[in-house]
Amino acid sequence: MAKRHKIDTRPTIAQIASVAGVSIPTVSKVLNGRLDVSPATRERIEQIIEEYGFVRNRAAQALGKGQSGLIDLIVPRLDDDYFFPIIQGAELAFKETGIRLVLSSTHYTEDEEFAWIETVTDRSTDGVLLVLPSDEAIQRLSKQKFPFVVIHNQGGLPPNIPSVTITSWEGGFAATNHLIALGHRRIAYIGKNVPAMDAIERFAGYRTALEVASIPLEPDLQQEGKFTANDGYRATRALMALPSPPTAIFAGNDHHAIGVYRALYELGIAIPQQVSVIGFDNLAYTELMNPALTTVHVPRLELGRVAASMLLKLIAGEALDMPLMTLPTRFLERESCAPANITCSA
Amino acid sequence: MAKRHKIDTRPTIAQIASVAGVSIPTVSKVLNGRLDVSPATRERIEQIIEEYGFVRNRAAQALGKGQSGLIDLIVPRLDDDYFFPIIQGAELAFKETGIRLVLSSTHYTEDEEFAWIETVTDRSTDGVLLVLPSDEAIQRLSKQKFPFVVIHNQGGLPPNIPSVTITSWEGGFAATNHLIALGHRRIAYIGKNVPAMDAIERFAGYRTALEVASIPLEPDLQQEGKFTANDGYRATRALMALPSPPTAIFAGNDHHAIGVYRALYELGIAIPQQVSVIGFDNLAYTELMNPALTTVHVPRLELGRVAASMLLKLIAGEALDMPLMTLPTRFLERESCAPANITCSA
Repeated sequence: MAKRHKIDTRPTIAQIASVAGVSIPTVSKVLNGRLDVSPATRERIEQIIEEYGFVRNRAAQALGKGQSGLIDLIVPRLDDDYFFPIIQGAELAFKETGIRLVLSSTHYTEDEEFAWIETVTDRSTDGVLLVLPSDEAIQRLSKQKFPFVVIHNQGGLPPNIPSVTITSWEGGFAATNHLIALGHRRIAYIGKNVPAMDAIERFAGYRTALEVASIPLEPDLQQEGKFTANDGYRATRALMALPSPPTAIFAGNDHHAIGVYRALYELGIAIPQQVSVIGFDNLAYTELMNPALTTVHVPRLELGRVAASMLLKLIAGEALDMPLMTLPTRFLERESCAPANITCSA
Repeated sequence: MAKRHKIDTRPTIAQIASVAGVSIPTVSKVLNGRLDVSPATRERIEQIIEEYGFVRNRAAQALGKGQSGLIDLIVPRLDDDYFFPIIQGAELAFKETGIRLVLSSTHYTEDEEFAWIETVTDRSTDGVLLVLPSDEAIQRLSKQKFPFVVIHNQGGLPPNIPSVTITSWEGGFAATNHLIALGHRRIAYIGKNVPAMDAIERFAGYRTALEVASIPLEPDLQQEGKFTANDGYRATRALMALPSPPTAIFAGNDHHAIGVYRALYELGIAIPQQVSVIGFDNLAYTELMNPALTTVHVPRLELGRVAASMLLKLIAGEALDMPLMTLPTRFLERESCAPANITCSA
């Protein structure tokens, strides 16, 4: 092989692949010591790596120099504070590498999502982080050349798509069990039929907890409602108007819980003395609600951080230890639940 | 003048300036029909514009094609929901132009701010939006080649720096007057000595309202406190422990108000029956507090939008109608204030 000039900085995996005339995953396989590469190819790649001084552990440093230095983060909305710690986590991870974070939102419409994919395809990006993308958007992105990582997903995700999610079922199960342990039997859930995977799972966790405790499922106590304060409010007014209202309400998310508090406040019903309430997400303000909201902590900062570091690995051509990371939720007891014998006999 | 080849897309003002060998503001002056350009220069520029087909009204479209297509937005923190609508407003404004928004935060440290300025200077950007930058950061940025717009400012801003701010004094004056009109005389303020301009102004508005009503200023009722819920809490505990506690609390911002509510909840003091409360900012959750918080609306989405469109004009080489835009705050009455005769005689 002809001797080449040294290039200025340590090359990226993409540059090594280009010099060797092979694909990026092939270089990655060699770096990771995998055996499904022909001996001749392996030798050629190893020679180039040695010649150009590529150091595996410095892959991250090489990022943002030879390439665009830009990573796109796409969130459904910028007026929902659920997403901000995710953005913050990603920003923190990228800050160390000198990569710039390009932020966009789709306002939850598929049209905007597709328009965004078309636009980003025309432009330079090193990779993409997608929060709650539609299945169709994932399919379209899969045909593009850059790596991406999904944070949460709306439904079934093809197994080869790198993604980060949370243990939603466990969170729903733990919250409901807490209420059962306090003696509650009439436990309502708000957020049935929200079409996102995380929502389906937490509702399933609620149902399983009731089943395990041999508490019959009552359809009246399972309220639909998008993840907004207004729907939490509406559902609570409906629940408290039942002939036999619940003694506890498990709100599918903290936005709901705000509406639950509001409805109970208007009705003059004390939390937790008359009705216990649990939320889901641990949004910043829940700690300061009166009473402080018992909820399920979702590690949103970590979702952003972990997804960002997975993406950095993919960009460097490294293999992921696991394509699907599931981060633990954590039940967080505060002030909004009380034993049912204080509560009920309504 | 030699005939040149048509270039592919309509040129930016910068490209026209480059071809004509003049500055961008000079091209802008010609486009805006101003007279302080020599006839020869004007003729040369007009000829080039005609030749290359530049259309003034399409200046925004030309953005993001010839240039980097990137605008940097720098906020102090990503864990303070005050800033989210500003980010959202900027994103909405840029979305129409195809410009990509690069988001960074400085975590309120000057070191990070300066590091960021050095980094961005090395990289391509069409312009910068800075939220609450330090005076030193503004001075450093002024030496760079790209345009920037300041959103809020910490102190005195040189007169030539384009910036957007709000009528903070008027907001503080209106809030305090509302309490005075309800018959309150012992009105506390939390947030004295916060070093940002907006905070200084709203405190000044509070003091003026009291002076106009001939209510003596009591130092005990003026509490210091950074704009956090914890400091609002701490200040309220101190206020309610006074020999003669206030009947109304004007919280310097809504984060404070959260802490005020919490402290009063713990003390068993009813809002507004025993103490009236007003906040400042109109953060999303204040509408859903119990009782709903009376506050001063800050048009944060508009701050982002207006600053973004000012920056787009600057990038296009156009002149700004006004370098300093001041957007109106609006007093917003909800549920957290009551007449003093219900309240006091404590």
